Amino acid sequence: MSSLIHFTLDPFSRRLRLACAEYGVVVELIEEDPWNPSAAIYEINPAGTVPIFLAGADAPICGVEAIGEFLEETRSARISLIPGTSFERAEVRRLVSWFDGKFYAEVSEPMITEKLIRRFLPRANGGGGPDTARVRQAMSNLREHLDYVSYLADRRAWLAGEQLSMADLAAAAHLSVIDYFDDVPWFRYPVAKSWYQRMKSRPSFRPLLSDSIRGVAPGAHYADLDF
Amino acid sequence: MSSLIHFTLDPFSRRLRLACAEYGVVVELIEEDPWNPSAAIYEINPAGTVPIFLAGADAPICGVEAIGEFLEETRSARISLIPGTSFERAEVRRLVSWFDGKFYAEVSEPMITEKLIRRFLPRANGGGGPDTARVRQAMSNLREHLDYVSYLADRRAWLAGEQLSMADLAAAAHLSVIDYFDDVPWFRYPVAKSWYQRMKSRPSFRPLLSDSIRGVAPGAHYADLDF
Repeated sequence: MSSLIHFTLDPFSRRLRLACAEYGVVVELIEEDPWNPSAAIYEINPAGTVPIFLAGADAPICGVEAIGEFLEETRSARISLIPGTSFERAEVRRLVSWFDGKFYAEVSEPMITEKLIRRFLPRANGGGGPDTARVRQAMSNLREHLDYVSYLADRRAWLAGEQLSMADLAAAAHLSVIDYFDDVPWFRYPVAKSWYQRMKSRPSFRPLLSDSIRGVAPGAHYADLDF
Repeated sequence: MSSLIHFTLDPFSRRLRLACAEYGVVVELIEEDPWNPSAAIYEINPAGTVPIFLAGADAPICGVEAIGEFLEETRSARISLIPGTSFERAEVRRLVSWFDGKFYAEVSEPMITEKLIRRFLPRANGGGGPDTARVRQAMSNLREHLDYVSYLADRRAWLAGEQLSMADLAAAAHLSVIDYFDDVPWFRYPVAKSWYQRMKSRPSFRPLLSDSIRGVAPGAHYADLDF
């Protein structure tokens, strides 16, 4: 069996949990706290980061981009998550980079750092209460990004085109983390909400909805399909 | 003919200039200053960033990941830059992400911002002299990364394995920008230097060696093959 070294609220790990489920790849999950990476992690991945995919006894595959492309190359017989022509595939990858680069830097990273990581860090390493100015800025960025998700979802069946793709998984993975904190103002974004509702209803999403981090309970509607 | 909207000292644009030359794709270069993106750029790429690849009259392709994979999918008849088995391809992509993610955040971005972008920004938007503490930190990070490049170059013919790959192009693109500023202490890293010398000697590299930005001359040895 394959394994995925992941962290429950890491959006990159979540994207790959969704991808594995969509591709039909059963993985054993191995949890790794990002605020306290083990020495063993550095031996597998010199960057010291998750996700890491272990395909049995083969060499480990490190990093969300490498793992995503690897799964598409080797496990996409049933469903492709980078579907279509080379131009359509480029649009999927553009949006994946948008969410993993821009959305992560402007929304996910500050929210995860301020609302979660700081709780678990010693005070000397930046532990303590959240920097409220950073959270406010991230929330303002989130609203702009929800406009963009709405724009895409309004014009296309799925975010990158007419088929479900890795772009939907990336977007949903990031938004699901913010939703865990109960910080997505869904009521203002009905089109984005309806797209997220479709994502949330997929069998691949179900395991994510029962996730919980000790000391940080999910928002009241996190697991509801009708939110 | 295809075009590439780029910025001369942007490492992502440089990687694609190298990739196009290696694949044998002739591109017209269209320069875009990142500190003052034109309205037209936002119409092509909502992120407002370069590189953007225009394959004739077809839809534009935005972002270094999407363009890199697109070129590999459509233009790699002569040479593959993501070569080998799925595992070998994953290693190429792991290292590309390393340089475009980690190296960029820890070295290229602070160096480019402090040594270049600030010169061209109005004072109200952060223009002025470099933040020397940020430059010092980036230089310290650079030394760690040169250790890693040396480690890889010592064990393999090329950084990701036995063949030239996109990983070499990504690493060389980032290092070439720091080298433009004359800030790479090559003499301390003979193995990394010898790898960079091989990269610099490739015909694909030649156009980059004659680059120049107004007001910021390249370092004395920037264009020398014997540095």
